[in-house]
Amino acid sequence: MNIEIINTGSELMLGLVLNTHQQWLCRQLADAGYDVTRQTAIPDAGPAIQQTVREALGRADFIIVTGGLGPTSDDLTRDLIAGLLGKPLHPDPAILARLENFFAQRHRPMPANTHVQAQIPEGALVLPNPHGTAPGLAMEVRPNPFRADGKTSWLVMLPGPPRELHPMFTDHVLPLLRQKFPLEAPFVFCTLRTTGLGESVVEEKIAGPLKPLTEAGLELGYCAHYGEVDVRLIARGENARKTMAAGEVIVRELLGNHIFGTQDDQLNAAVIRLLTERKETLVVAESCTGGYVANRLTDVPGASAVFLGGLVTYSNEAKQNLLGVHPETLASHGAVSEATAREMAEGARARLGADHAIAITGIAGPTGGTEAKPVGTVFIALATAGHTFVLNPVNRFDRPTFKQVTCQQALELLRRTLLKR
Amino acid sequence: MNIEIINTGSELMLGLVLNTHQQWLCRQLADAGYDVTRQTAIPDAGPAIQQTVREALGRADFIIVTGGLGPTSDDLTRDLIAGLLGKPLHPDPAILARLENFFAQRHRPMPANTHVQAQIPEGALVLPNPHGTAPGLAMEVRPNPFRADGKTSWLVMLPGPPRELHPMFTDHVLPLLRQKFPLEAPFVFCTLRTTGLGESVVEEKIAGPLKPLTEAGLELGYCAHYGEVDVRLIARGENARKTMAAGEVIVRELLGNHIFGTQDDQLNAAVIRLLTERKETLVVAESCTGGYVANRLTDVPGASAVFLGGLVTYSNEAKQNLLGVHPETLASHGAVSEATAREMAEGARARLGADHAIAITGIAGPTGGTEAKPVGTVFIALATAGHTFVLNPVNRFDRPTFKQVTCQQALELLRRTLLKR
Repeated sequence: MNIEIINTGSELMLGLVLNTHQQWLCRQLADAGYDVTRQTAIPDAGPAIQQTVREALGRADFIIVTGGLGPTSDDLTRDLIAGLLGKPLHPDPAILARLENFFAQRHRPMPANTHVQAQIPEGALVLPNPHGTAPGLAMEVRPNPFRADGKTSWLVMLPGPPRELHPMFTDHVLPLLRQKFPLEAPFVFCTLRTTGLGESVVEEKIAGPLKPLTEAGLELGYCAHYGEVDVRLIARGENARKTMAAGEVIVRELLGNHIFGTQDDQLNAAVIRLLTERKETLVVAESCTGGYVANRLTDVPGASAVFLGGLVTYSNEAKQNLLGVHPETLASHGAVSEATAREMAEGARARLGADHAIAITGIAGPTGGTEAKPVGTVFIALATAGHTFVLNPVNRFDRPTFKQVTCQQALELLRRTLLKR
Repeated sequence: MNIEIINTGSELMLGLVLNTHQQWLCRQLADAGYDVTRQTAIPDAGPAIQQTVREALGRADFIIVTGGLGPTSDDLTRDLIAGLLGKPLHPDPAILARLENFFAQRHRPMPANTHVQAQIPEGALVLPNPHGTAPGLAMEVRPNPFRADGKTSWLVMLPGPPRELHPMFTDHVLPLLRQKFPLEAPFVFCTLRTTGLGESVVEEKIAGPLKPLTEAGLELGYCAHYGEVDVRLIARGENARKTMAAGEVIVRELLGNHIFGTQDDQLNAAVIRLLTERKETLVVAESCTGGYVANRLTDVPGASAVFLGGLVTYSNEAKQNLLGVHPETLASHGAVSEATAREMAEGARARLGADHAIAITGIAGPTGGTEAKPVGTVFIALATAGHTFVLNPVNRFDRPTFKQVTCQQALELLRRTLLKR
């Protein structure tokens, strides 16, 4: 079956915003076993919207159109699609009452143009919007005049704001899709998230041993991010669960502790979980990453139970005053050195009374490198009871990527250490 | 004229990666005065690529296809497009020599499949790739068999990795576009970036006074991000520069200090620039933002000259030990209070010897709120010589947005204070 996504919005065509809807919708559909065959973005203009929807109706079984359902003059989707399909619009009293209530609750007068959002094309299903004013719409195009075989297509219109679109898709669109176009065979998928190995190494380790299963239909894919490689397994058919279980056992055995999570797990959350389980605490002293590691750790809800605090010690004075790094160490080895990293970690651990301390010092660039210590040089120290370990990678990237990669290495060093204990 | 972008990649259709090419290319083209009329994403599959390119050739003057030029088995774009246009592929000795050199320099053996990247469709222009192995290609489709009017179209193929695509677009594609399809009239654009005002307030202030200019052809647009509103002005025609200058004067007069920069300027860079100009220093003490502010500040190259350091004091102990907050203040007012924020800022300023200190304490959520201090409550303190000012917004958002909005408010508080001095 063919599923197409059409994103409307002149701001997309001007490059003013990223099209996050594409990734989000494609991911939700893929994880439910449906493939998206095409995605199109077009400006908020009558001819473009009508032409694109007409073409999609000629090809696709299920079409999702985003944006253009609001009350302003550039919100054209509802009217144009109703026009294209020859359906008159009628006001829906229930939606109108909901809109009035929405504004009354917020003690705001209802703008006059709001009522257009209660206009419903004849025969359309209304998808409720608890997070905004514009309801979604679903229409069965039957018979479908734009399709050579006249086969029915479904057309769904969703509001643009993500906090309105996401729950509407999950609560209404996915159930509708599953009901109207049930999967022909059972479908299961699993993403195993790894770190510390390159994509080709991961492939070398698992592709051979998985061959009997992939030849029997298990789908195997890789997706590399900086410092991480996702292994994606998909199984279909009657034995899907059994095949998946067998595949997962093989991958877990071969990649072992390189796997830090499944599906959407993040390395920062994995580290916080390990610390929480062990009732151990962490502090971070950062120079070149400038707070990135602390920020990533505190993105995890509940981090405050194990993350005591962080210090961003850019200047030598801060390294001395806040962490107790010796002036002689800085003078003889330099701020970017194994000795300084070690003293930063040990100082942070002692001063904040934590079980573990990560310290990072390096040269993020674009300037500041020398022959002996080129841009990208980093020292990552991990101090735990009785032992301090120092990593010394060279991360030659632009500044934001440098921070990201270095943080990943630091968190992975801590994760491996925690797993060993 | 019609410009279309076609992004190939099964990873896009599975929602595994964000399509950043769309935003980047659309933005570059818009800033050069060209409108993109359609963008399409499709999987790496023969029929999808050929059908989409055929359709685009039927409509568009200039088509940019991204991805699928590499050496692996899912890189199909070059072959499929050559096939569609009936052009044989020939090996290019210069590219082959470059590829061999590329691997020799890196002391790596050249994989056997690399040579397919030296296959060039007959008549195609080669766009050099100094950052990778796959060159780009540009083809004039003349006459164009897919277009009713037979009009010439240009088809450009670019490699997928952004660090290869970006310079190739800027150095070769944009000049080619400008040469083959010069703008009919002069074009200038300007984005004025504002903070501290809502989108509707910005519109209320400037739309009326700009009316004589917009009626005479000045294009005016708004784009709202969290805490920021961009005002975008476009002028075309012979008087473009004069119209733009007149428009900019009006907007600058009416929005004054709310304007923190132009084009792609960021608030963090604006703050670092102001501090650098004044030779003044800054420290940051963060609780609920967990290092986000320090991280944003240190994203700016050269920040180390004015940003002395940051402290992430999640726990009460850290607030006492590192910042000198009084235990009685924490006991009687709580960690999230005006009094604590004030002592955090003043403590950080004194201990690190900075001219300015920002301190932030609040409840990021999703849990931890109370009736008196709901989730989203924040105190932002700015301590400067002789004076500490405290803001108390309520930022009810998800955790990452909470950090972003709170950081914006803190940086804006500092920026306004610096401008007043």
